[in-house]
Amino acid sequence: MDVAQLTTNVLTIRSAEQADRWAVGKLMQRCDIFGPAEQRCVDEMFCETWTTPRPDNYCWLIAWRHDQPLGFACYGPESLAQNTWDLFWICVAPEARGRGVGHALLTQAEQRARQEGGRLMVIYTASTPAYAPARRLYERCGFICVATVPDYYANGDHLHIYWKRL
Amino acid sequence: MDVAQLTTNVLTIRSAEQADRWAVGKLMQRCDIFGPAEQRCVDEMFCETWTTPRPDNYCWLIAWRHDQPLGFACYGPESLAQNTWDLFWICVAPEARGRGVGHALLTQAEQRARQEGGRLMVIYTASTPAYAPARRLYERCGFICVATVPDYYANGDHLHIYWKRL
Repeated sequence: MDVAQLTTNVLTIRSAEQADRWAVGKLMQRCDIFGPAEQRCVDEMFCETWTTPRPDNYCWLIAWRHDQPLGFACYGPESLAQNTWDLFWICVAPEARGRGVGHALLTQAEQRARQEGGRLMVIYTASTPAYAPARRLYERCGFICVATVPDYYANGDHLHIYWKRL
Repeated sequence: MDVAQLTTNVLTIRSAEQADRWAVGKLMQRCDIFGPAEQRCVDEMFCETWTTPRPDNYCWLIAWRHDQPLGFACYGPESLAQNTWDLFWICVAPEARGRGVGHALLTQAEQRARQEGGRLMVIYTASTPAYAPARRLYERCGFICVATVPDYYANGDHLHIYWKRL
């Protein structure tokens, strides 16, 4: 049970626990945006969080409505930068989109990073249409696209870097 | 012994082996640019390369003159991008600077990435004066600064992203 648990209406956001691996995996599988490579990557990061904890450990938030996992976020500090935090992943179940779950997860991640001394948060994302709802979410939360790396993910698929002072 | 070893004049560049950990560590310690956090990070990445090899494993090149290590480079593919390679680290011993060691290491890293199907190479670096020689090296090798993330490393210390098609 997370002390800093946030419950709004019937949405509960709390830190993920090791036992939430199945919920995170299920959310990734059900998500229409991420493929098998992303699913493996998230699972590896989730497991590493508990098997090999580090000073710059990954932080995980999970959103529930009743007993249904609706989304998760993974964020953490950049070890070689001063108080710069990354949002690595954010994922919302298809049926729960447009209801503020992503906004609540990202706002909560920002708030927790700020409490830990976070100065900046950055988000690396793709330029393709599939990521347009994610980019709109970042902009609604006050993030600015400050940099673009052309053709980073593939030819025609650029890396956008979103940025916000905490 | 590396089959694709490159020897120019008396400079030899070859893939690093596990036993080269001491040489890489010594180069990092003697380097006036990197601090203890960077030294730890490089050592962890070097050890992981052999203890937990992955499909997107780190690649290491080391430059020797006679029995003296003069520099190393660490590069590898980005697992979530198509044929995009990162140069993670490049380090040249203080007494060997300005003699083409960095240029030879970077050129060799590019060539090997290209042989593995590499399409792009990117380099993340800092905007501070200490990194000016590194930025000049990247530019001499044909890299372009395509993006800047303000205050990324610290207030006033920006992240520059250098980029080259392979």
